[in-house]
Amino acid sequence: MNLDLVDRLLSGDRRAAAQLVTLMEDGGPPARAAIAALYPHTGRAHIVGVTGSPGTGKSTLVYELAKEFRSRGKTVGIIAVDPTSPFSGGALLGDRIRMQKLSTDEGIFIRSMASRGQLGGLARATGDAIKVLDAFGSDLVMVETVGAGQSEVEIARAAHTVIVVDAPGLGDDIQAIKAGLFEIADIFVVNKADRDGAERTYLTMQMMLDMGEGNCGRDWRPPLLKTIALQGEGAAVLADAVERHLAHLEGSGQLFVRKKSLAEDELRRILGQELLDRLMERVWAKEWDSLTQGIADRTIDPYTAADTLLKAFLGGVALEGTAEGEDHDPR
Amino acid sequence: MNLDLVDRLLSGDRRAAAQLVTLMEDGGPPARAAIAALYPHTGRAHIVGVTGSPGTGKSTLVYELAKEFRSRGKTVGIIAVDPTSPFSGGALLGDRIRMQKLSTDEGIFIRSMASRGQLGGLARATGDAIKVLDAFGSDLVMVETVGAGQSEVEIARAAHTVIVVDAPGLGDDIQAIKAGLFEIADIFVVNKADRDGAERTYLTMQMMLDMGEGNCGRDWRPPLLKTIALQGEGAAVLADAVERHLAHLEGSGQLFVRKKSLAEDELRRILGQELLDRLMERVWAKEWDSLTQGIADRTIDPYTAADTLLKAFLGGVALEGTAEGEDHDPR
Repeated sequence: MNLDLVDRLLSGDRRAAAQLVTLMEDGGPPARAAIAALYPHTGRAHIVGVTGSPGTGKSTLVYELAKEFRSRGKTVGIIAVDPTSPFSGGALLGDRIRMQKLSTDEGIFIRSMASRGQLGGLARATGDAIKVLDAFGSDLVMVETVGAGQSEVEIARAAHTVIVVDAPGLGDDIQAIKAGLFEIADIFVVNKADRDGAERTYLTMQMMLDMGEGNCGRDWRPPLLKTIALQGEGAAVLADAVERHLAHLEGSGQLFVRKKSLAEDELRRILGQELLDRLMERVWAKEWDSLTQGIADRTIDPYTAADTLLKAFLGGVALEGTAEGEDHDPR
Repeated sequence: MNLDLVDRLLSGDRRAAAQLVTLMEDGGPPARAAIAALYPHTGRAHIVGVTGSPGTGKSTLVYELAKEFRSRGKTVGIIAVDPTSPFSGGALLGDRIRMQKLSTDEGIFIRSMASRGQLGGLARATGDAIKVLDAFGSDLVMVETVGAGQSEVEIARAAHTVIVVDAPGLGDDIQAIKAGLFEIADIFVVNKADRDGAERTYLTMQMMLDMGEGNCGRDWRPPLLKTIALQGEGAAVLADAVERHLAHLEGSGQLFVRKKSLAEDELRRILGQELLDRLMERVWAKEWDSLTQGIADRTIDPYTAADTLLKAFLGGVALEGTAEGEDHDPR
């Protein structure tokens, strides 16, 4: 049945795309089977991450950028991981009306991802939703995240081109660097450029860019742009920068390198989750209960408790730095 | 040598505490050995998480709360995971001066945690730093995080008492619920209560609290407090609420339940990371390279690639839903 869904997705069925993204949110074997089927049809979309603090107006910027790319004949998928994004429904009326306009366009697919579930689950679901929209045929897939948390940085890192959005009046201009965003940015935007303090925000970011140059050995200097998303100003220039960055990635061979490193990140994430799931299936409820009670009572520390379970699960494979473990029988 | 550090920590040596927190940031076998040694001396501190969006003034609130608890004769440890916190050094001059005043007090230990490293690493390091300050003898350990990311929510969840801070003028009052903060809050604070819009923020949160009541079956209704942290207003009332919540946890037996569930979360996190580390040690560079290249080239999907590695690593243990795998030799 899921394979039928995949067929419908590949033939351009929007409802199939929506159903598949929901399937990715749920995860599990049905999601994997679908990914295995649609994966050969991925790899064509340009994945663009847009991140920044709440209040920078990045949703509006995503909206304007999507419109701009539509006018250039591209199809666009939008995934909002930001819980404060109007794309996620938690929005003011004006935002919602704009979003609705966008969603009647057949060349645009918008979807928000729920921030529930365990750590890492959202990054996996988002990564798989990107694949769905990629296989669906979106020329661009834009992923909007909040730039404050670590998992959000991980999600932004899943993009080929990362846009970091700042705006004046948010208090702390150097916040972006500290949160690790500075290193992953390919394009910087100072949005709300008509507001008080915009020039100061711009100059601060420019200074940081100047300081960073030479250090990282990258042959792409992230451009620093000004936009006023609410008035659509700067969207064309930003779209140009996005296209220029893609051309740079392709021309320099870095798209190749980036895709490889994205594959590594993703494989590592899946392995970590899978291993834990499989161990948990094998642990006896009674042993789990006794160990976690021991941790709570301070009779055993969590690392020693983990070692106990790892030895039982992995046998000889588990013993770090010892060879004699190789003789144990895991079962 | 680390055991010597632990002895010095237990005898109240501040430098040993600082060195041990650094050791926890680095992680690895030395950190574990130290945790194993100090763990029996933990379990006495009241762990208080303080979270909220940037701009809510939660650092100032933590500062005032620490001062209040000091005046009540308690020792306080502060761990700032928030990259925008003045405790982390990225602060305005006024903030820094206040922080410095606090750090000359022998009864207070302040430390910020770097937000670098891989996903999950920060949560582990923070959890272990809490143990260090707990064993050090801090009556309270306050952990300040940004309330936007998933990993930050995980860190806040490591607390016995979670304070969620909001403030007027941040645009989106319902942001807190959506980010999953509403469910984990034990105490709500509207800070900057003298600002325009504070009453609206307060009423919105009160309405949400009223709606949530009855649904969750908790016998603790999170109080909703107003503070003006910059003027120290409300700190005493907040400290009272923190103490009342601890008394409630102890009286109802929920402290017991919470400590058990914290132990489960932590054990699961350590297991996930350990399993991945051990698998990665066993994977041949050549196979890793070929699989990740295959993912990048779309000749194999990431889940199938993960299965290949899992089978090789775990042998029979790896095959989900199959019994024949039990006969394989993992090596």
